[in-house]
Amino acid sequence: MNITTVGLDADDTLWHNETIFRLTQDRFVALLADHADRATLEARMAETEKRNLRLYGYGVKGFTLSMIETAMELTGGEAPASVVREILAAGREMLAHPVETLPGVDEALAALSDRYRLVLITKGDLLDQERKLAASGLGDLFAAIEIVSEKDREIYERIFDRHGSGAREAVMVGNSMKSDVLPALEAGAWAVHIPYAITWAHEVADAPDNHDRYGALASIADLPEWVAGRTPQA
Amino acid sequence: MNITTVGLDADDTLWHNETIFRLTQDRFVALLADHADRATLEARMAETEKRNLRLYGYGVKGFTLSMIETAMELTGGEAPASVVREILAAGREMLAHPVETLPGVDEALAALSDRYRLVLITKGDLLDQERKLAASGLGDLFAAIEIVSEKDREIYERIFDRHGSGAREAVMVGNSMKSDVLPALEAGAWAVHIPYAITWAHEVADAPDNHDRYGALASIADLPEWVAGRTPQA
Repeated sequence: MNITTVGLDADDTLWHNETIFRLTQDRFVALLADHADRATLEARMAETEKRNLRLYGYGVKGFTLSMIETAMELTGGEAPASVVREILAAGREMLAHPVETLPGVDEALAALSDRYRLVLITKGDLLDQERKLAASGLGDLFAAIEIVSEKDREIYERIFDRHGSGAREAVMVGNSMKSDVLPALEAGAWAVHIPYAITWAHEVADAPDNHDRYGALASIADLPEWVAGRTPQA
Repeated sequence: MNITTVGLDADDTLWHNETIFRLTQDRFVALLADHADRATLEARMAETEKRNLRLYGYGVKGFTLSMIETAMELTGGEAPASVVREILAAGREMLAHPVETLPGVDEALAALSDRYRLVLITKGDLLDQERKLAASGLGDLFAAIEIVSEKDREIYERIFDRHGSGAREAVMVGNSMKSDVLPALEAGAWAVHIPYAITWAHEVADAPDNHDRYGALASIADLPEWVAGRTPQA
């Protein structure tokens, strides 16, 4: 059974993302330095994000709303208007941020797209992810783009049925053990973990034990060889 | 050439939406009554939304961010924190609002789904639209769901190719002349306009002149008969 389809996560797999969130969070810490230390602020922000995830889902707009809410809470409603305006500006800058692909991405995707169907599978704000894909210049390499509100077993089954030849003949590649690797393995696909330098707290999970369809790579540059190794030549 | 596929808009076509935005906007007017009259506030809010559309796209989260930004501008940054908290709360309430289908929707969709492939085609926040579809109880009637960042000719061509037998054998149904009717006609599909009581300023456009693939209906209850009339029986 050959691999026909390669699913790829986007943020922190193809291009930098969490770094930009962290830089914005640093700016947020500095803005509220008179009201709370970094540890307190980060803990409160994580609580707000978790509470709002059900309503806001993933992405920059929800992150911006949660920063404003956290600022209001931490200042007892005394946050100066300048703080709110700065947070709004930081959110807009994230949405307009240049897209920087990670080392090896362009070459790896070009090589893979010759032999496999590539499908982009990502969470986040719809328009923002479309913008980043367009800005990355990688759009033409993908046979399909799926921007989803959650990544679970059913989603991978449905996507690999729709755009490929089923999960058994697909591999999912990404930096999140929780969203990219574990549910794809549950769906019966192969899965490759390529860690990014930093991981959002909500995405942390343990690696699977001894799973024969699981691989871990240090760089996406090694992906074409890994996939070819799973595909016996005629 | 028979119609095989019926594309349906969601907000204000299947369920109430603009009404909820207007109620929130009324609350926003009341909150800032000391700073601006209704006309000024609505004009400024429309400007902010238009300016941000390119970055935020459509949906409740962007609307909430634009309300906060407008409040900050109109008060010269002197908006009390209570105003910001109220706006955040209003946004969350919109995202948790019960879904109320419009009269005749359930019966019309049940009748259509027996003979045609139904595809939901909507803009807005991903998670919010998925939630509303689930809450509407209509989810099982659709062969496919497409949540898109923009509705233009290319989008309709792509969706009706992917999920149907091409735009020539599809009809798009919705309350927006600009987003549902005109680009679907451009794509070569049929299009039916079913006006909602109120229309968001950004969605207003003139009806097409004398187009033989265009129809206007007062209620979705009349849709099954209209579609059947375009489909000669064997």
